[in-house]
Amino acid sequence: MIIIMDHHASDDSIEAVLTRLDMAGFQIHLSQGVERTIIGAIGDKTRLGGLGLEAMPGVEKVIPILQPYKLASRTFHEEGTIIKVGDQEIGGDTIHVMAGPCAVENREQVMETAEIVKKAGATILRGGAFKPRTSPYSFQGMEEEGLKLLAEAREATGLLVVTEVMDVRAVPMVAEYADIIQIGARNMQNFFLLRELAKVDKPVLLKRGPAATVEDWLMAAEYIMSGGNYNVILCERGIRSFENYTRNTLDLTAVPVVKYLSHLPVIVDPSHAIGKWRFVPAMSKAAIAAGADGLLIEIHPNPQEALCDGPQSLTPANFCSMMTELKQIAAAVGRRMD
Amino acid sequence: MIIIMDHHASDDSIEAVLTRLDMAGFQIHLSQGVERTIIGAIGDKTRLGGLGLEAMPGVEKVIPILQPYKLASRTFHEEGTIIKVGDQEIGGDTIHVMAGPCAVENREQVMETAEIVKKAGATILRGGAFKPRTSPYSFQGMEEEGLKLLAEAREATGLLVVTEVMDVRAVPMVAEYADIIQIGARNMQNFFLLRELAKVDKPVLLKRGPAATVEDWLMAAEYIMSGGNYNVILCERGIRSFENYTRNTLDLTAVPVVKYLSHLPVIVDPSHAIGKWRFVPAMSKAAIAAGADGLLIEIHPNPQEALCDGPQSLTPANFCSMMTELKQIAAAVGRRMD
Amino acid sequence: MIIIMDHHASDDSIEAVLTRLDMAGFQIHLSQGVERTIIGAIGDKTRLGGLGLEAMPGVEKVIPILQPYKLASRTFHEEGTIIKVGDQEIGGDTIHVMAGPCAVENREQVMETAEIVKKAGATILRGGAFKPRTSPYSFQGMEEEGLKLLAEAREATGLLVVTEVMDVRAVPMVAEYADIIQIGARNMQNFFLLRELAKVDKPVLLKRGPAATVEDWLMAAEYIMSGGNYNVILCERGIRSFENYTRNTLDLTAVPVVKYLSHLPVIVDPSHAIGKWRFVPAMSKAAIAAGADGLLIEIHPNPQEALCDGPQSLTPANFCSMMTELKQIAAAVGRRMD
Amino acid sequence: MIIIMDHHASDDSIEAVLTRLDMAGFQIHLSQGVERTIIGAIGDKTRLGGLGLEAMPGVEKVIPILQPYKLASRTFHEEGTIIKVGDQEIGGDTIHVMAGPCAVENREQVMETAEIVKKAGATILRGGAFKPRTSPYSFQGMEEEGLKLLAEAREATGLLVVTEVMDVRAVPMVAEYADIIQIGARNMQNFFLLRELAKVDKPVLLKRGPAATVEDWLMAAEYIMSGGNYNVILCERGIRSFENYTRNTLDLTAVPVVKYLSHLPVIVDPSHAIGKWRFVPAMSKAAIAAGADGLLIEIHPNPQEALCDGPQSLTPANFCSMMTELKQIAAAVGRRMD
Repeated sequence: MIIIMDHHASDDSIEAVLTRLDMAGFQIHLSQGVERTIIGAIGDKTRLGGLGLEAMPGVEKVIPILQPYKLASRTFHEEGTIIKVGDQEIGGDTIHVMAGPCAVENREQVMETAEIVKKAGATILRGGAFKPRTSPYSFQGMEEEGLKLLAEAREATGLLVVTEVMDVRAVPMVAEYADIIQIGARNMQNFFLLRELAKVDKPVLLKRGPAATVEDWLMAAEYIMSGGNYNVILCERGIRSFENYTRNTLDLTAVPVVKYLSHLPVIVDPSHAIGKWRFVPAMSKAAIAAGADGLLIEIHPNPQEALCDGPQSLTPANFCSMMTELKQIAAAVGRRMD
Repeated sequence: MIIIMDHHASDDSIEAVLTRLDMAGFQIHLSQGVERTIIGAIGDKTRLGGLGLEAMPGVEKVIPILQPYKLASRTFHEEGTIIKVGDQEIGGDTIHVMAGPCAVENREQVMETAEIVKKAGATILRGGAFKPRTSPYSFQGMEEEGLKLLAEAREATGLLVVTEVMDVRAVPMVAEYADIIQIGARNMQNFFLLRELAKVDKPVLLKRGPAATVEDWLMAAEYIMSGGNYNVILCERGIRSFENYTRNTLDLTAVPVVKYLSHLPVIVDPSHAIGKWRFVPAMSKAAIAAGADGLLIEIHPNPQEALCDGPQSLTPANFCSMMTELKQIAAAVGRRMD
Repeated sequence: MIIIMDHHASDDSIEAVLTRLDMAGFQIHLSQGVERTIIGAIGDKTRLGGLGLEAMPGVEKVIPILQPYKLASRTFHEEGTIIKVGDQEIGGDTIHVMAGPCAVENREQVMETAEIVKKAGATILRGGAFKPRTSPYSFQGMEEEGLKLLAEAREATGLLVVTEVMDVRAVPMVAEYADIIQIGARNMQNFFLLRELAKVDKPVLLKRGPAATVEDWLMAAEYIMSGGNYNVILCERGIRSFENYTRNTLDLTAVPVVKYLSHLPVIVDPSHAIGKWRFVPAMSKAAIAAGADGLLIEIHPNPQEALCDGPQSLTPANFCSMMTELKQIAAAVGRRMD
Repeated sequence: MIIIMDHHASDDSIEAVLTRLDMAGFQIHLSQGVERTIIGAIGDKTRLGGLGLEAMPGVEKVIPILQPYKLASRTFHEEGTIIKVGDQEIGGDTIHVMAGPCAVENREQVMETAEIVKKAGATILRGGAFKPRTSPYSFQGMEEEGLKLLAEAREATGLLVVTEVMDVRAVPMVAEYADIIQIGARNMQNFFLLRELAKVDKPVLLKRGPAATVEDWLMAAEYIMSGGNYNVILCERGIRSFENYTRNTLDLTAVPVVKYLSHLPVIVDPSHAIGKWRFVPAMSKAAIAAGADGLLIEIHPNPQEALCDGPQSLTPANFCSMMTELKQIAAAVGRRMD
């Protein structure tokens, strides 16, 4: 860490910082320039929280040097992580498409969608059983009934199931039915939920929060990993920017960035990021080209009847034609979809 | 609501939209311009979620006209809401300063801070008992022990207590000790938590999420209110923007905006928004001048020893001198601090 | 356009708005709901600027319905525009890579880079002759000397030349040497410059401003087109968001969005958007997969000696290997690079 | 400056960086930690542009320590700058309100507005003579005719005149009529314009760009100052964020931040930042409370007839009552308005 002292920092202030660093066991390098005194401190970053350096007199800025995450970092885990779920591997050569409706609405809708998803070559079925949405007046989900329908669709098709949990109290129930448990964007920093999922023996799909930097996102993964669950799949789903033609701004550059900083698999959810089905195929192709390990796609047998997120759901026909195109992109970047 | 049809929308598409609106009980106004057909629909907006209009062929855009929130809106509640807590009124003539440390650390720190807060003229003591932070390696809070210390400080000083709850399972415990329960910025859209707080007989301090628009924020208030708890205090604490000299960007204009759109009291937390104590007094004064009903301020008897958020905490001396200045601003805008 | 009246708008206020719209030749549709009166007005949007409706008493909001741009809109020009420059066509089947150094530094650097660019299969040479940068203390460019070197490189290789103009007074000089004239992101709304370029008989490469919405950007294109120059190539180069691991946030979704809203060709500049060469190849592939008509790439024979933007410049070797990969992506989306 | 080497940086890479720094005359401090090698370099930052360190193999990041601006920095100029214009001083005890219409429309409007402005206690008249706006189809300004009217209003009232210049070619003309020359937000990084104004003997009002950090903004001031014109007045006018209820997000915290980092006077333009007149008085009061040296306010004798920006213009009555309130805030913070 680097501590930059104020232009006017007194010798006493500098001395006080040095003493504190020394007592905390840091190795110190002092540079006294004409305009500023700069202190380099080498040691255990995790102890920094309690040092309070930034609040000491004469301290202008404290610049951390090392990444604050360890378990999620590629620095200490050079090989990319491959997560095994059922007979599938996420993070390997094969690109996985997870598709399905925003919300589980009824048996017919789920079974019909699962068939379409399977036939088009996707491997994982997505669907929400809990849907507490922005408005308290909107449809709020089928809850356990929905989870059962997803499990039934798995039986029928062989697809794996990914579904979201939002309430710490529902974690055991969701873990019983799901193959992969999703943490939604709004809960990326719901630390009590992260802690519960750290104890579960199922992979976690961790969506990036709309105001989360890549570092915040990797720290959330670190929460889960430091609690004992190493199977974290990251999911980019758009950040909030001033551009509002699309619902969020899909930060696709986060894919190669996260691949560089971390060994965890990364997938992309263009449906939620964009909010308009029309642009989903183009950005799905772009995601694969950028190096994503998979996609999370909303489809609905009849988008205009969807109880939630119809405008961003692909029709079965659009989904099938997109899958065909995706296979060509996957091949062009040396990956497979099978 | 206004439905704008695509330039190329067929007559059949237009007809299908009209039929659906008609069946849903909307009154319809059709305008066929040279470039676009536009449909106005008047009726019950809460039913809109299930209409799926945006996913229908030929529909370019659906523009809602009415605010999606009702209970939080000033349209149906013209008088500003005054919330009574203990012997205090929030939202009335008196400006309330809620001050205290980021985290409750030990008995001495809490009691000492409470004395300072009381003496300087603030009315409410703040302090966090649960601190699951961005890093899993940082101090995580004293939990129930911390709540007890806050209650003890209340006994000793007569100050009211505001503290945060993050875990749905902890709501009853926090409600037992706190006078006002805070929902943190990261939980603004944790709908299961909002629902629990809707059932509690204590006022809720609802912080704005860092990626939340004013409308999102008022919808979160609506969640709590629609569940039966009308005592919601809004708290602006900065939004995430590209400017990173400060931790977040304090959106002070949200104060008069929310006062115009809603009848709920609004307070401002400059400490978290800015992240640097140096700028807290200036922005506290600005908040009062902009019409805020109160402030949430971090102070610490010894910021450089703070286990959390030291850099944004005022010293007791700075806090006292700020309070003196605030009283002058309050008087200049016809408010009181006593 | 839709005019939404305030909840409390008086009959007189409504009448005044109706009168004004009527006098301006608009056709009117009035909807009086329980909560709001809504006025639909159909007519010539370009006259709206002078109506001042939003400032009239009782008016809550004016919602424009039609796009404010005409010449740039696909609504009135369904075929995609193909721009001919020399023997190349931009916007057709062939994807064009425009590559070169940030700044023209000397004869050797330009000639060497041009050879590399040509050999790797790119068709257009980029290079800046005017470089007034964020800091007044940085290298400011070779000016006309630089333009001459670019022209010399064109002679030697057959590549076309794209270069930026920033000063209205330099437009004739730049137009003399360049095949395509670039407007930089910082000048996207420098309307005097846009007007000058509207009069020039050279295609304009219009970069998106870092705070510009897609609509702002298309309005800037409209400025140039309404002045008589229809040959505008749009260039996405990142918008400013809170994420600062990368220099800007590449808004790749803008590619399919602009293709949908406009008939103009769109290219992508990942080098400036990202600011780190390491991520440029992945995002170049993604850009082609998303439907871009070309790329603007910074390369330098020796990035670490570059006088500007070294960190985002590819080495010749990296550029060549990227070009090979791009050809495969181009083929996968049915395009060509030759 | 601090250079952080990659986890895997070879000894040769480290050696190469050290050599380059040494040749450039920097004093070096080397820290070899377990995870990273860190190099501290002390010397002349202005030479850094040409070092290209970030592009050297093994370099992960280069962190500048010193502010890149010198002349604008308070570090080297501790006293706040007071700018004398006519018989007024900007940056001293007196708060200056600059008010007037967005655009000069005709003689009557200017003279009438000037009388109102004067009578209410403002000291400076604002008004735009050049108005090239977002849409090429909107009113574009009266140009020199407008400047003459502003000068005439000065004669009649004794008010000073501030007006914008956008075109380098118009600088001499504008300088002839104006007392203070404004650079608009869109031109904050129009470096050719900054250079021209550096040569003019009139104070410059420099608006912050909507995507500019505080550092970018101070660098733009540095451009003007390094060219010889030290009389720069900074003007905060909102930055672009995701919140779109207001036109931009007024970053009022920038006022105390800039006061801390720089010695230049700072004023605030709430009218453009917010875009809705209704919230202008509250935020004007907040700006003064936050420490601003003045305000830039749009008023119009008849906002609904305004050719530009009517929705954000105050009526004369609203302006007068706001001025009365501002005087009380000014007094509460120990400033004057006279």
